[in-house]
Amino acid sequence: MLRIGLIGTGTVGGGVIAIIEQKKAEYREKLGIDLELACICAKTDEEVAPYKAKGYTVSTDADAMIANPDIDVLVELAGGYNMPRKWILAALNAGKHVVTANKALLAKHGHEIFPLAASKGLHVLFEAAVGGGIPIIRSLQEGLVGSTVESLSCIINGTCNYILSRMAQEGLDFDTVLKDAQRLGFAEADPTFDIEGIDSAHKTALLASLCSGHRVDFEKIHVTGISKITAQDIAIAKELGCTIKLLGIYNRDGDRVDARVHPCFVPQNHLLSSVNRVLNAVYLNCDNLGETLQTGAGAGRMPTASAVVADLVSLARSIDTGKRAALPMGWFNVENSATLVPISETSARYYFRITSRDERGVLAKITGILAENSISIETIIQKDVNDPGNVSIVVITEKVQDCRASKAIDAINALPEIVENSQVIRFLA
Amino acid sequence: MLRIGLIGTGTVGGGVIAIIEQKKAEYREKLGIDLELACICAKTDEEVAPYKAKGYTVSTDADAMIANPDIDVLVELAGGYNMPRKWILAALNAGKHVVTANKALLAKHGHEIFPLAASKGLHVLFEAAVGGGIPIIRSLQEGLVGSTVESLSCIINGTCNYILSRMAQEGLDFDTVLKDAQRLGFAEADPTFDIEGIDSAHKTALLASLCSGHRVDFEKIHVTGISKITAQDIAIAKELGCTIKLLGIYNRDGDRVDARVHPCFVPQNHLLSSVNRVLNAVYLNCDNLGETLQTGAGAGRMPTASAVVADLVSLARSIDTGKRAALPMGWFNVENSATLVPISETSARYYFRITSRDERGVLAKITGILAENSISIETIIQKDVNDPGNVSIVVITEKVQDCRASKAIDAINALPEIVENSQVIRFLA
Repeated sequence: MLRIGLIGTGTVGGGVIAIIEQKKAEYREKLGIDLELACICAKTDEEVAPYKAKGYTVSTDADAMIANPDIDVLVELAGGYNMPRKWILAALNAGKHVVTANKALLAKHGHEIFPLAASKGLHVLFEAAVGGGIPIIRSLQEGLVGSTVESLSCIINGTCNYILSRMAQEGLDFDTVLKDAQRLGFAEADPTFDIEGIDSAHKTALLASLCSGHRVDFEKIHVTGISKITAQDIAIAKELGCTIKLLGIYNRDGDRVDARVHPCFVPQNHLLSSVNRVLNAVYLNCDNLGETLQTGAGAGRMPTASAVVADLVSLARSIDTGKRAALPMGWFNVENSATLVPISETSARYYFRITSRDERGVLAKITGILAENSISIETIIQKDVNDPGNVSIVVITEKVQDCRASKAIDAINALPEIVENSQVIRFLA
Repeated sequence: MLRIGLIGTGTVGGGVIAIIEQKKAEYREKLGIDLELACICAKTDEEVAPYKAKGYTVSTDADAMIANPDIDVLVELAGGYNMPRKWILAALNAGKHVVTANKALLAKHGHEIFPLAASKGLHVLFEAAVGGGIPIIRSLQEGLVGSTVESLSCIINGTCNYILSRMAQEGLDFDTVLKDAQRLGFAEADPTFDIEGIDSAHKTALLASLCSGHRVDFEKIHVTGISKITAQDIAIAKELGCTIKLLGIYNRDGDRVDARVHPCFVPQNHLLSSVNRVLNAVYLNCDNLGETLQTGAGAGRMPTASAVVADLVSLARSIDTGKRAALPMGWFNVENSATLVPISETSARYYFRITSRDERGVLAKITGILAENSISIETIIQKDVNDPGNVSIVVITEKVQDCRASKAIDAINALPEIVENSQVIRFLA
C-alpha cells in the first residue's frame, strides 16, 4: 500500500483525487497495488471541507502531515517556490518519496532536491512537470535508454503555441490574440511567464538534464519569448513554407550542452509544424532509434493529474515489492552543473526583417554589412509595408554562427535609414 | 547482473549485441546495472564465429543454453513460430524471463506464453514487437495508467505506409510502387504478410489486449490489406482532403472490443495523415489524458534493437533490486479471450467507388439501392475513366452500420451495368 499525503486541492490536486477514486479498484485488481489517500492538505478549512465530508483525513498543517510516519509519499501540487521547496526537502529528510508537477521549483531548486533524494535512495518523480499528457520523462528514462538523444526540439508551452497557431491561422497580430487568449482562459492575466519563454526554459532545463546526463541550470539557458513576433513575420514564414513555433532546444555537443528557448522557423514538412493550439510535442533525434515525436495535451486538469497518478502507480509498483534504486537520479549528475554552449557559438540559418526608410542605397549598405561579416545570403526580399515611406527588407541567410549574425544585425540597426530594431528569428534547420 | 542468453545473430540480434557493447559501461555507471551477454546462440558455427572470435561464449544448441542455470533471461530474436515457441516455453519453465520482438509468435501463442509467465512470476517483455522505435508498450503499461484508452488508431506496418505514401506523392499505381519497394528493400519478395495486413493485425491484437485489459485473439480481428487500393482511390481521397492509410484500430465498446485492420480515409488535418514513408505512429484517445500521438521508426536494425535493450534495462532494474510482479500480465487477462465486436456491427462513413457501363439509369438504380438500405448520401460524384464506355461513380455515405453498407454494395455489384466489384473504404471519422 502506498500512503499518499497530498498538498493542494486546486485544479490538478482535485483531478488527482478524482482519478484515484475512479481507478483505485482497477489498480488493486490488475496491478495488486493500493493507492491510499492518507491525508489531503490545503491552506484553509474551506478547501478541505468537501474531502472531509467524504470521509478523508484532511489537514491544513502541511508540516505536521509531512512529519507523520503514516505517509509514504508527498504529492506536492500547491505551486510556487518557497513553501513547496521547504515541504519537499522536509519530506525527503523524513524518508518520504516525492511526486510533483512543479517544473519551476525543480528547475530552480533541483540542485538541492535531487542530490538529497539520491543520498536517501528516494524517488522524486515529475512526469506531470513537462508536457502534462505526454509520458516524455518516462520515455527518456526508460523507453529510450537503448539510444543516446542527439537532439531534442519541443513545443512545451500551450499558451505560446495557442497564440502562434491562431496568429498563423487567422492572420491576427500578437496583442489581439493574446487578449482573446486571456478572455478564453488560455493565457494568464499576467502572461509574462509564458510568453517570454520562462516556463519553456524551466521544462527545457529538465529535459536537457535527462538527455545529457548532467544538471542543466535553468538560469544559464538563453531565452527569447514570442511577444515581438508580428503578423508580418508569420505571413512571411508562410510564404517561405514555414510556421513559427516557440521551441525548447537541446543539442549534444561533445561534453557541453546546447540548450535554449527561442522562436523558430519550422519547415511545414517537419512533424512539429502541424502541432497546433494548446497541444505540446517533443521531437527527438537519437543515435540508434532515429527520429521520434510524442504529441499530447500539455496542460489541463485531467492530463496533468493523469501524469501524477502514473508516477504514483510506478512508485507503488517499485516500493511494494522491494526497494529499487530511485530512477531519475540515475540519469543525470545532479552535483555538477553542465557547461552550456554560449548562444554566440551556436549556428543557424537566420531570418532578418529590417524596417528601413525607402531610400536609395539601403540595400547596398545591408548587403555590404553582411558581406563584411562573411554572411552568405540565401534570399533577399523587399516588401512594401502599410507605413508610407518605409519598406521591409527580409534576408534569409545561409547557416552562420550567432556571433556573426549578431554583429551584422547590430551594424544594420545602426544605419541611419533603419526605423526600428530588426527582427531576428532562427530556422530550426 | 543480468545474464543474457541471446538467440539470433541476424539484423536485430546483431544490433542488440552492438548496443550492449556500446552502452554497457554507461549503464553500469549511471544505473548500477550490468548487462552481461552470457551466451550468444545461432543455428550455425559460421554465424557465431565472429562473436566467438571476440571472446563471447557462443552456442549452436539453443536448448542447452536455455537449460543453463547461468542464464537469467532469454532474448529470442530468431523469428518464426515453432522453435521460438518451444524455446520461450522452455525458458519460462526453467524460471527465466523472456524478451522478444516476435509479434507474430505473441499474437499466435500469447495464450500459452503469458499465463505460464504469470504463473511463474516472470516477465515477458516485447517493446520491440510493436512500432520498433516507439516506446508504446511502456507508455500503455506505465505512462498512461492514469487514463483509460477509449480508442487507438495506428500505422504500424512500414511497408504498407511506404507504398501508400509513394502512391500519394507520386501518383503511381500499387504494383509499380510495390516493385520499386521490393527493389529498394522496403518490401519482402513475398509481401503478402505485410500488404494483406496480417503483420498489422498481429500488432493490433497486442495493442488491443493492453488497451482493453483482455486477451484479444489475432484470428478474430477483421483484416483488409492494401493490395486493392488504386491510384484513382488515392487521387479521389486527395480531392476530398484525405490520405489513405492502413490503420490498426481499437475502440472500447462496453465489455466488448472493437479491433480491426483496414485501409482508411484519414482527413489531412488529422495527426496521422502526415505520418509518411516507413514511419509508424500510434494515436490514442484517452478519458483523462485526451489525445496523444507517438511517432517513430517502425522497424530497422537499430531502432528495434534499441527497444530490446530498453526491455533488458527495465528487467535488470527490476530484478537487481528485489523481485517485483511481472508487468505485462497485470494489464490484461490472459486466460479469457475478449469478445470482439463483429465488423458487421461497426459503423463508419463509407467511400464506394463503383465502376459501371456508361448507361442511362445506373445512377438511379444505385441511389435507389442506397435508399432501400436507409443509407444517406453525403456526396456523389461521377468520374470519367480512361476505359471508354465505363464511368466511375464515387459515393460518400453518412455514418452507417457495416452490415447495411455491405448489403447495399452487394446489391449494387449485382446490377448488370456494374463492370467490376466496387471499392469500399471506411473513413476514420
